[in-house]
Amino acid sequence: MSAKVCGQIPYIKWAELQIYAEEFPQVTDGIYDSEKTNELSRLLKIAASNTPKKYFKEIEAAAGIFNGLAVIVSIQRESKNPDKTKPKKSKLFPLLPTNRRNFLSIAALGSLAAIGSGITSQYLQMPKVTWRMANFLDGIYDQFIISKAPYIIRERIKKITNGRFEIEPLNDKKILTEDILKDVSDGKKVQCGFSGIYYNANKYKVLFFGCAIPHGLTPEEQTAWLLYKEDPQDKLTFIQKIYQRPELDLNVIPFPAAATGAQMGGWFKKKIETIEDFNGIIMRIPGLGGEVLKKFDVNLDKDLPGGAISLNKIAKALRDDKIQAAEWIGPYDDVQLGLHQAEAKYYYYPGWWEPSTTFDMLVNKDAWENLPPHYQEVFKSVCLETYTEILAEYNQKNSEKLAEIYKLKNITVSKFSPEIIKKTKEETTKLLKLYASNNDLFGEVYQKWNSFKGGMREWSNLNQ
Amino acid sequence: MSAKVCGQIPYIKWAELQIYAEEFPQVTDGIYDSEKTNELSRLLKIAASNTPKKYFKEIEAAAGIFNGLAVIVSIQRESKNPDKTKPKKSKLFPLLPTNRRNFLSIAALGSLAAIGSGITSQYLQMPKVTWRMANFLDGIYDQFIISKAPYIIRERIKKITNGRFEIEPLNDKKILTEDILKDVSDGKKVQCGFSGIYYNANKYKVLFFGCAIPHGLTPEEQTAWLLYKEDPQDKLTFIQKIYQRPELDLNVIPFPAAATGAQMGGWFKKKIETIEDFNGIIMRIPGLGGEVLKKFDVNLDKDLPGGAISLNKIAKALRDDKIQAAEWIGPYDDVQLGLHQAEAKYYYYPGWWEPSTTFDMLVNKDAWENLPPHYQEVFKSVCLETYTEILAEYNQKNSEKLAEIYKLKNITVSKFSPEIIKKTKEETTKLLKLYASNNDLFGEVYQKWNSFKGGMREWSNLNQ
Repeated sequence: MSAKVCGQIPYIKWAELQIYAEEFPQVTDGIYDSEKTNELSRLLKIAASNTPKKYFKEIEAAAGIFNGLAVIVSIQRESKNPDKTKPKKSKLFPLLPTNRRNFLSIAALGSLAAIGSGITSQYLQMPKVTWRMANFLDGIYDQFIISKAPYIIRERIKKITNGRFEIEPLNDKKILTEDILKDVSDGKKVQCGFSGIYYNANKYKVLFFGCAIPHGLTPEEQTAWLLYKEDPQDKLTFIQKIYQRPELDLNVIPFPAAATGAQMGGWFKKKIETIEDFNGIIMRIPGLGGEVLKKFDVNLDKDLPGGAISLNKIAKALRDDKIQAAEWIGPYDDVQLGLHQAEAKYYYYPGWWEPSTTFDMLVNKDAWENLPPHYQEVFKSVCLETYTEILAEYNQKNSEKLAEIYKLKNITVSKFSPEIIKKTKEETTKLLKLYASNNDLFGEVYQKWNSFKGGMREWSNLNQ
Repeated sequence: MSAKVCGQIPYIKWAELQIYAEEFPQVTDGIYDSEKTNELSRLLKIAASNTPKKYFKEIEAAAGIFNGLAVIVSIQRESKNPDKTKPKKSKLFPLLPTNRRNFLSIAALGSLAAIGSGITSQYLQMPKVTWRMANFLDGIYDQFIISKAPYIIRERIKKITNGRFEIEPLNDKKILTEDILKDVSDGKKVQCGFSGIYYNANKYKVLFFGCAIPHGLTPEEQTAWLLYKEDPQDKLTFIQKIYQRPELDLNVIPFPAAATGAQMGGWFKKKIETIEDFNGIIMRIPGLGGEVLKKFDVNLDKDLPGGAISLNKIAKALRDDKIQAAEWIGPYDDVQLGLHQAEAKYYYYPGWWEPSTTFDMLVNKDAWENLPPHYQEVFKSVCLETYTEILAEYNQKNSEKLAEIYKLKNITVSKFSPEIIKKTKEETTKLLKLYASNNDLFGEVYQKWNSFKGGMREWSNLNQ
C-alpha cells in the first residue's frame, strides 16, 4: 500500500502520536504503574522515531488509543491532586477543566492499558496492504497448470495474513512480458507481476539465466541454481542480485513462483530426422530456443507480419499451414491448447530449448522495502511453496497425459536425433558466447552459470 | 496450544464475555452510535457462540476490552438520565454509584470503540500458540544439512507470525524415530516432531512409502508423489491420508519438511565388484536398504550386540574394523561425519536404497485441528518451502564436495556394477511383495505407488 494509492499521509495524527510519545511518561509519572507506562512509552517512541511512509490508518488508530488512554489518565491525575491550591494542569490537555473526580476504577484502567499496549503493537504489526499484480496470462488463459500459480499465491498470502495483505489482479488486456518487467520496475501501476522471461531487448538477455537456457539445467539443478547464494549470509540469491546491477536499470526483485519442469519439443507437420529438416519451416517458438533454431533456417512466428501468434491461435495456424511447427509446454498444457488436434502429428522430445522454465513473481523494490518484514517472509514462503507445487503438478499431470497421447493413433511421439541434439547444443554455446562477448554482465553470469552447471551435472550424473 | 499444556480454561472470563454479548446492545441502546454497537455486539456473539477450547488468554483480553468499554458506556448512560427521580441502574454494573457526571468526550469514546472492534478481532486472530517439537537429531547432531531443517522451520514460523506461533525444541536426549512417531501421536509431551522414517514395527512399514523405497523415485518424482492427491479437492495428500487409516492407530499428519535428494552408496573397506562381495560384511545401514542387503548375507550394525551404531561412532567403528561398510547420506554430510578419513576408501554410488529420502514434520492431529486456519497455512507453506530449500542445498553442496572428494588420492569413487543394481532391484521387488502379502495396507499403497512410479518414469525418461 503506497501513499499514492491511498491518499494523504495524516501528518497531523503523526504529530499527535509524537507528542504522546514524548509526554506520556511525564503525564502518568507517579500515578500509573510505571512498568506499563514505560512499555507504552517505549512502543510509542519506536513508532514515532521515523516519518511514516505508510500504515497511516494504523497510526490514526494508535493515536486514537493513546488519546483515549491519555484522557483517562489525565482525569486520573487530576483526581490525585485534590488538595493543591493550583491543580497541576495536564500537559496533554491543558484546556480540560481540572475539577474532576475519578470515576474509573484502577482495575479497568489497568486492563485497558495492558490491552492497549499489546493490541497496539499487534495492530501495527498487521497493517492492511494491497498490491496490484500484472499477469502475462491475465484474463485470457486460465486453462494451463501455469495459470494457477498467481491465483494460488494471492489466495495463500491472503489466507495466511487473514486478509491483511492482499494482491489484486490488474485484469488488464494482454501484456508483453517485457512491459510487465518495466511496469513492475516503475511501480506506478503495479507492485508486482507474474511473468515469464521472453524479452527482446539485448540488455535483458542476461535475465534468461533465471528462466531457461537451451540445453541448460534440469528442473532439480535449476531449483538449486535459483536458490544459490554466493555467500550464505546474503539476503538475496545470486540471480536476485543480478537484477540489482546498475547496467539493467531495474527496480525489481524476482521470486521464483512456478516451474514447468521438463518440456516437450513441440508439434511438427513433417518428420524432423536430420538438422536439415528444420530448414525453411515456420515455427512458433519464443526465447533463446528460437534464436538457436534461426541458425538452422527456421523462420520464427514472431518475425511474421503481425508478430507472434497468440497462444489460442496456434492450433489454427498449424491447421492452416501458416506455420509448420509449434511448441508450448508439455503434454498436459499442449493438449489444453488443442495442439494434438492441429494436424501436426509428429510430437518430439525433449524440449531442449527449455529444459526447466522458471516463472517469477517480479516485485517492485520500493514496494518490497515498504512491506513489513513478516509480510516479506510470507511472500517468500508462498512463492517457493507454489513453485514446488506447480512443478510437482506438471510432472504428475504430464505423466498421465503422456500415457493418453501414446494411445492416440494419429500422433507419433519421437525423440530428436542425437545429431540434432549435438548440433543445436553447439549452436547454443556459440550464441551464448556471442552474447557474452557483446555484454559484460551476460559474460559474467554465463561464466558463473557454466561452472555451476558443470559441478552440478557431475553430481547429477552419478544418479542417472 | 492445548488446554492441558497451558492450564485451566477461564470459564469465569468466558461467562463474563457471554453476559457482555447479551447485554451490550441494551446497555448502550439510544446513547451510543447504533452501528458501532451492533458491530461490537455481533463480534461478541460470534466469539461467545462456542464453548472455548483454546485462545483463553485472548478471551480474557477481549473481556477486558469490553469491560472497559462497558464501564465507560455505563457512566455515559447515567449522565444521560440526570432528570429522572430514580436513575436507571446499569445492568452490567448494578452496584456502581449512579450520581456521576460524564467527563469523557463522545469523540474519545467513539475512537476507543472503533479501535476496540477492529483490534479485538485482530487480536483474536493472532492467538499465542506454543508447540513443543521432538527432533531425531536433537542436541546431538547439528553439523549436517538436514539438521538445519527444524531450526529453519521454527524460525520462519515465528517470523511470519510475529512471534505469535512458536515451536520450542524439546532438546531431549536421543529419541528413536519410532518413539517420536508415538509421542507425536499421543500429543502429551510434544505437538510435533521432526523425524526420518526408520521404523521396525511391521505395521509402520507402509510409511516408508512417504520416505524412501530402494530403487524407488528420483527426488523430482518423489516430490510429485508426496504432493499427489487422489482427488484435487482433498485437503490431505494421498500419503497424509494413509496416516489416517485405522490399521495404523495413529493421530498424526505428516508434512514433508526436508529431502536429501540422491544419496551415495556408502564407504567400503574392500572393493565391491560382484554381488558376492557383500557376503559376510558388517554394514551400518538402516531401513529397507538394510533388509535387502541381508538377503546378500550382509550383517547389519543394528543387529550387533548393543544395537545400531551412533552416527558419531561410525567412523571409529570403520577404522576399528568393527564394521566393514557404512552409509550415511551424501558427499557433504558424509565428510561432516569424517567418513572420508575412516580407512574405508571405496566410495560407491548410487545410494540405490534411498534414491531421495524425505524427512517429515509429524504433527499431532488434535494440535493441528486446534490451530487457527491461517496458522495451519503458515505451517504448510513453511514446511514445503524448507523441503525445497534443503533439497536445493543438498544438491549444491554435494556437487561441490564431490569435486573435492575426487581430488583425494586415497579415495576411489566407483559405480555399483549393473549386476549389483539388477540383483538388488529384484530382491527389493521380492521384499515389497512379501510385505504386501502380509499386510493389506502395505499392499494397497504398494500398488498405487508402483503405478504412479511407472507413469512418472515414462515421463522422466523422455528427458534424460
